[in-house]
Amino acid sequence: MKSTHLGYGVFDDGRGARVGVRRGDGVLDVAPLAADAGLAEAEALAADTLNPFMALGRASWLRVGDWLAGLDAPTIPLDEVRLLLPFAVADYVDFYSSLHHAENVGRILRPDAEPLVPSWRHLPAGYHGRSGTVVVSGTPISRPHGQRVVAGESTPSFGPTLRLDVEVEVGFVVGVPSALGAPIPVDAFADHVFGLCLVNDWSARDIQAFEYVPLGPFLGKSFATSISPWIIPLHALDAARVPPPPQDPPPAEHLRAAEPWGYDLHLELDINGTVVSRPPFSSMYWTPAQQLAHLTSNGASARTGDLYASGTVSGPQREQWGSLLELGQGDAAAFLADGDVVAIRGSGAGQDLGEVTGRIVGD
Amino acid sequence: MKSTHLGYGVFDDGRGARVGVRRGDGVLDVAPLAADAGLAEAEALAADTLNPFMALGRASWLRVGDWLAGLDAPTIPLDEVRLLLPFAVADYVDFYSSLHHAENVGRILRPDAEPLVPSWRHLPAGYHGRSGTVVVSGTPISRPHGQRVVAGESTPSFGPTLRLDVEVEVGFVVGVPSALGAPIPVDAFADHVFGLCLVNDWSARDIQAFEYVPLGPFLGKSFATSISPWIIPLHALDAARVPPPPQDPPPAEHLRAAEPWGYDLHLELDINGTVVSRPPFSSMYWTPAQQLAHLTSNGASARTGDLYASGTVSGPQREQWGSLLELGQGDAAAFLADGDVVAIRGSGAGQDLGEVTGRIVGD
Repeated sequence: MKSTHLGYGVFDDGRGARVGVRRGDGVLDVAPLAADAGLAEAEALAADTLNPFMALGRASWLRVGDWLAGLDAPTIPLDEVRLLLPFAVADYVDFYSSLHHAENVGRILRPDAEPLVPSWRHLPAGYHGRSGTVVVSGTPISRPHGQRVVAGESTPSFGPTLRLDVEVEVGFVVGVPSALGAPIPVDAFADHVFGLCLVNDWSARDIQAFEYVPLGPFLGKSFATSISPWIIPLHALDAARVPPPPQDPPPAEHLRAAEPWGYDLHLELDINGTVVSRPPFSSMYWTPAQQLAHLTSNGASARTGDLYASGTVSGPQREQWGSLLELGQGDAAAFLADGDVVAIRGSGAGQDLGEVTGRIVGD
Repeated sequence: MKSTHLGYGVFDDGRGARVGVRRGDGVLDVAPLAADAGLAEAEALAADTLNPFMALGRASWLRVGDWLAGLDAPTIPLDEVRLLLPFAVADYVDFYSSLHHAENVGRILRPDAEPLVPSWRHLPAGYHGRSGTVVVSGTPISRPHGQRVVAGESTPSFGPTLRLDVEVEVGFVVGVPSALGAPIPVDAFADHVFGLCLVNDWSARDIQAFEYVPLGPFLGKSFATSISPWIIPLHALDAARVPPPPQDPPPAEHLRAAEPWGYDLHLELDINGTVVSRPPFSSMYWTPAQQLAHLTSNGASARTGDLYASGTVSGPQREQWGSLLELGQGDAAAFLADGDVVAIRGSGAGQDLGEVTGRIVGD
């Protein structure tokens, strides 16, 4: 059965925030339809975020998906609604799971060292980002200020970033929570993760470079993270499953899936109307199931609304790199100017993943 | 006027979670009392977290404080209630603002390098932690598992941490939020921060050592962070304000307060009934006002319920160090054993800050 919808979101047509399902150029106002149909999920769908529905679990996600596939109902035109952040973000984690990206960045930032740190092939490296500054596509991005060492100077100064970058990523959204002390097995991924979205993990490279040793990225990232407005349920992307690249050394036992899979998603990075890169998600070294298993392997709990992003998606070829740091090889002129408009789009298995956009605003 | 209460918390005596104010060995059931008194804050106090009250702002915090100081009402005995997490944690940030701690750790972990990284004296270094695993005092702490390189081995293995540590910290809780793109000035600290609590930032040093380059601490910290159950309003600690240590170089303009202050709080770290250290909070290099100004200096917004912790508090003397890593100088035998009970207590300006406790549970 081919899914006919793009995903779940939250919209406001002037009568308050409601859960919607995208269909073509319109939005299904899904809660009253679900109530009319007598669905057990109707109450959860009547919320102003996706969180209550996402918390119901896979059986509900599949049942509502089947119901939607057979549903014939009028839609509200997309240009008559405002799309809101689709879910309340609990914790936000950003991974670093593209081998090509990690090697590219290592070579640019630490040219005299091995590009990969010793732990990289043993675990999917990641860090916590700021969930309060995850914003929906279309939100203007104010150029952040911070302390950075300007070229030709020896001490830091405070001012607007001179190296504002994008990171093309895919984000995974947890629906079913887990208890403190109970790691999520790598094979339980699809029981916990509701769906995925596109992510632009905006990065101020000069602020990041000055601050990141030894505690990692902080203000160089925390000013904004943009996500696409439609969360695509995982079950709509089953046809996009592909085997991940081989892993050497073999992953530790708790990261070893019975049937490992990645997703064959085709992404594109568009700046001011020109596609500058086409990163292939199928090239990611660590899978989303391994990321979730790692994230909880120490006993940390997961909550409904947790968002974890893949890390920059970069393929082996230059035209597949997912950041301006890589595309410009560190050249200052390659970064974003005020007024630039960035769009990340994606598709997979005949599903349009939508897009995440943002325009850079100067002082 | 001496404040007669220890702080605000959330308790359950079997009739549901409610806001309470500690008084001696009892808890004031504050919402019905506030309603009887006709306080405008009564509705916010009738919630099951402190968030709505904390969002009201400083005028309300002071008015309710004054009302409580003159209030004569019966309390519920502490031993008849369960204390819950007092607020819903939005984002959690952990700083690293003790000069003595940063130097001690640098010398132990990177003996061949300068103990302080170049940015340390320019900005209060920090990173985002996992807000979903902030737990209230008394919650058992399961020994986390993770990948670490065991002494005598050359490759990592997955297993229980062999170096489970504590970090004695003070946490600050944001009440009044800020907008995206609008940094909080360093002099606006007391308009945004409602109060403080004690924090034990549990740390698995071996997991942390293997993972922390280049993205910072992640699973070595995210398994649990414990906080004391009573949030002490800042206005109750005005008498504990002290000038912070001198800063060299002078801080950047946005970190320069008109009248900088730290807090003269006396902390103690107790393991299995023995006080092993007495860290002085007055020795912290970066102030809580500078931390909040830095945190939002890139335009990141703050939300009601944001928690930011000071970083390990260590004074100049050995008996003032706030972690077992420092107290044991890296010796494996110095870390926590299963069954150990850790308590951090604090006081300042005649106010008892309460305590945060946790017992280590093995497999």
